Amino acid sequence: MSKHIKAAFLVCPGYLPVDVIGAHTTLGFLPNTEVHLVWKNKEPVIGFPSYPTIPTTTVAECPDDLDVLCIGAIPGEVLADQETISFVQKHAANGCNMMGICGGALLLGAAGLLKGRKATSNFNTTAPLEKFGAIPVFTSEVVVDGNYYTAGPATGGIEAALLLISKLRGKQAAQFVELVSEYDPHPPFGCGNANTAPKHLVQQAAAMNKEQIEKDVAMAYDTFLRNKN
Amino acid sequence: MSKHIKAAFLVCPGYLPVDVIGAHTTLGFLPNTEVHLVWKNKEPVIGFPSYPTIPTTTVAECPDDLDVLCIGAIPGEVLADQETISFVQKHAANGCNMMGICGGALLLGAAGLLKGRKATSNFNTTAPLEKFGAIPVFTSEVVVDGNYYTAGPATGGIEAALLLISKLRGKQAAQFVELVSEYDPHPPFGCGNANTAPKHLVQQAAAMNKEQIEKDVAMAYDTFLRNKN
Repeated sequence: MSKHIKAAFLVCPGYLPVDVIGAHTTLGFLPNTEVHLVWKNKEPVIGFPSYPTIPTTTVAECPDDLDVLCIGAIPGEVLADQETISFVQKHAANGCNMMGICGGALLLGAAGLLKGRKATSNFNTTAPLEKFGAIPVFTSEVVVDGNYYTAGPATGGIEAALLLISKLRGKQAAQFVELVSEYDPHPPFGCGNANTAPKHLVQQAAAMNKEQIEKDVAMAYDTFLRNKN
Repeated sequence: MSKHIKAAFLVCPGYLPVDVIGAHTTLGFLPNTEVHLVWKNKEPVIGFPSYPTIPTTTVAECPDDLDVLCIGAIPGEVLADQETISFVQKHAANGCNMMGICGGALLLGAAGLLKGRKATSNFNTTAPLEKFGAIPVFTSEVVVDGNYYTAGPATGGIEAALLLISKLRGKQAAQFVELVSEYDPHPPFGCGNANTAPKHLVQQAAAMNKEQIEKDVAMAYDTFLRNKN
């Protein structure tokens, strides 16, 4: 019998459902696997775009022996929240596999977990990972460094989860889930990579939410400094 | 100013969040767009794998003038539910753009909306679309026939939504959202297409849930016959 897998996905007010649902489904399709949606309490949280979600467990009640903890993009307030940081640090210290999808990599950075590690995020927050002692990798593929799986938004979570299944259950199990999910994408416009997309679109995308992103990175960095001592 | 877009996504007990969240986020990222999660009531529904979600509107309260209605995979009970069928038929008759992602195409078929149309679904339920008068297309790309966008699971919803944005707001808007979503996937194992994946995996995947799928298709077909007269 394959080892039972316990996976948790952080949800909170303003979380991005698309960053966690890919990994949640990919892992949740595996036999003998339990998936949890974790937050500080079980009150409904509204994702962005608007997606009211009810957490299934709390940071206090969540199993201590998680095999996987997945974090997608979250607002600055959560990047600065010490209870969340302590929760993430505890599971990292237990040897849990940590997934930082899109802006979720900032939480791993804020918690001081990316020091000396290769990591990526979305194209706006990859360079800032250096502030947290990480080695930023500018790629649209998953970056694996030890137990740490970081990736860009959306499908990054699916791909990180498939790599993790390969590690935990072997390559054939991962191939099977990739088939069952029919993960055979065809981007219709070929503009998904900031390194190769038309420059005027990249400039427009980099300008969008610039202030908000700088504020979020600053909040994560304050948390990092606070946790350094 | 671009035309305001109203989009709704069907959620129900046992719905597959991964089939709708991709399209929900892709459309929800657009300015001047409202997104609704619609079910018969606003009680929480549990998605599969377990994802407790609160509908934001009801079939009774949902705007009449939807531009987009997106349906992902749903259980047989909903394929047989006349209230849901009537809701879908009403919006189709209004000229709404209809998205059937993965098993969601079965609901469009059950409602009698795919007669004479090219359509696709997941690899287990594409051939049965013929029962509903559709012309099944065995592809992992989105199939567009008039206002009807059908696709395979998971990323099918992202791609259908990008094509729809191109239709509603122009190609550059779609390119921009593709970039902002960083939709530049790299399937790690290359097994996502049932036409090219290793045969033993395809056989295993086809055998999985075979009885359940046959039951669901039969329930959809009963609904189709009931609505024929």
